[in-house]
Amino acid sequence: MKKQQLTILKIGGKLLEEDAKLEQVLQAFVSLEGFKILVHGGGKAASALCLHLNIVPKVVKGRRITDAATLKVVTMAYAGWANKTIVAKLQALGCQSLGLTGADLNAIQAHKRELETVDYGFVGDIDCINTEVIRQLLELGIAPVFCAITHDKKGQLLNTNADTIAARLASALAPFFETRLKLCFEKQGVLKNPDDEQSVLERIRHSEFKLHQTNGVISDGMIPKLDNAFYALEQGVSEVFICGIEGIANSKKGTQPCL
Amino acid sequence: MKKQQLTILKIGGKLLEEDAKLEQVLQAFVSLEGFKILVHGGGKAASALCLHLNIVPKVVKGRRITDAATLKVVTMAYAGWANKTIVAKLQALGCQSLGLTGADLNAIQAHKRELETVDYGFVGDIDCINTEVIRQLLELGIAPVFCAITHDKKGQLLNTNADTIAARLASALAPFFETRLKLCFEKQGVLKNPDDEQSVLERIRHSEFKLHQTNGVISDGMIPKLDNAFYALEQGVSEVFICGIEGIANSKKGTQPCL
Repeated sequence: MKKQQLTILKIGGKLLEEDAKLEQVLQAFVSLEGFKILVHGGGKAASALCLHLNIVPKVVKGRRITDAATLKVVTMAYAGWANKTIVAKLQALGCQSLGLTGADLNAIQAHKRELETVDYGFVGDIDCINTEVIRQLLELGIAPVFCAITHDKKGQLLNTNADTIAARLASALAPFFETRLKLCFEKQGVLKNPDDEQSVLERIRHSEFKLHQTNGVISDGMIPKLDNAFYALEQGVSEVFICGIEGIANSKKGTQPCL
Repeated sequence: MKKQQLTILKIGGKLLEEDAKLEQVLQAFVSLEGFKILVHGGGKAASALCLHLNIVPKVVKGRRITDAATLKVVTMAYAGWANKTIVAKLQALGCQSLGLTGADLNAIQAHKRELETVDYGFVGDIDCINTEVIRQLLELGIAPVFCAITHDKKGQLLNTNADTIAARLASALAPFFETRLKLCFEKQGVLKNPDDEQSVLERIRHSEFKLHQTNGVISDGMIPKLDNAFYALEQGVSEVFICGIEGIANSKKGTQPCL
C-alpha cells in the first residue's frame, strides 16, 4: 500500500519575527496537502528577553548555552509566546493545530548533553521520538506544532535545536509516511556566494557539501542545517529542501540536498 | 449505563510557587482514579516577571488588566514556564499529560470582554468548550493540563481566569462524565473566620453564601471562586470542593458548596 504523505516544515530566524512573513509562512503551511507538522525555533526573541532580564545570552558553535535562568526564558519564549501565537494564528486559518514541547505526551525524550569541552547546560540530545502518539494525533486530523524544548522524562525540561528536532521527527516518521522535510529560513536556499541572494544551489550532494565546507563556501549556521538534512536522507526521509517562504509550497524554489 | 468518573482539579496561588508543595499536588493528582484534567493559574510568577520587565501589573476586582505587554508576559509565564514545568513533572510521575491553552485544538473559544466600566484589555469570556476533542484526549489516556489562556479563533490569545476555566470545563463535560470539580488553593477550604485556619466550613449552601457575602465573612478572591462553584453545580457537575492539598485525595477535607 502506498504510504500517505507527511510534510515536516521547520521555520526559524527572521520568519518568526515579522508578522507579515509569519502570516505568509502559516498560510503556505495550511495549504500543504496531506499530513503536516510544524517545528519552530525562536532564538532572537529569547535573546531579547534575556537582555531585558539581564541574562547575557551565550552561543558557542551556533548552539545556545542554557543555564537555569536561560532555560526558563527559552521555555517562556518558545513554548509560551512563539508557540501559542502560531497555534492561535493557525486556528484562525482553520487548521486544527496543537502546540507541543517534547514533554507533552512524552513526544520527544532527550538527555542532558554530556560534558565535553563545552558545558552546554540544559541542552537535550534526543533519545527517542514517540511515533505512536504523533501518529494518533495526525490520524485525528491534528497538525502538531513543536517548539525547541524537550525533556528527560525525569522532570527536567531541555533546550534542543529546532532543525535537529525537525530532522529527527522526519527520520522517525519515515517508516510510516512518505516524508518530506523542509528547513525554511530567511534566505531562498543554500547560497554559492553568501553575498548574492540569487546564487541558490539547486541541489547539493553530500560530497559537494564536504568540499564546500572545506573551502569555506558553506559555514556558520548552514553546517548543522545541512548535517541535519543529510542525516534525514540517510534515515529514509524521501526529500529534504532548504528554502525560503516561496519554497514551502513550491518544490522548485530552494536547495535540495541529495545523498 | 453508569457514566465514568472525571475529576477536574484546579490549582492556584502559592501551590505553584513552592517546589515541595507542587510536587505534593501533582502526586495527589496522579493518584486520582478515573479521567482527570488539571487547570492551573500562575498569577504571582507573571506579576514578578512584569515587574522585572517594568510592566506594572494592574488588578481590579480580583481580575488582572491585560494590556498587550501583559498578555505576552502571562502567556509566557502560564503557557510557557508553569504549564511545561507541570507537564514535565507529571511525565516523570508516569502520567501521560498534555499542556494546553484554549487555542490548542481550539479547546476553549472565548471573546474579548466587552467594554464595561472597566477595560479589562485582552481578557477572554468563554463562549464554547470543545468537548469532542477533550473527550478524544481522555479516551486516549491523556491527562490535559490547561493554563489560563484562551483565544478567539481569530488569532487573538486571551487571558481567562483559571477558576472560571475549571468550572466551565466541568460544566461542559458533566453530560458525558460523573464530574467532580476541585478548586484547590493554599487554605484548607472556606474559612468562617479568616484569621483561623481551622475554621473550615464543611459545607456551604447557596443561601448561606449570599448571607456570608452580605455580612462580610466571605470576601475578596473567595467570591468569584464560590460563584464558579455554584455555577458548576447548577450546570450538573456532581460535586464541587474548595480545598487545600489534603483535599485532593480526601473528600472529607475542605468545603463542599451545595445548592
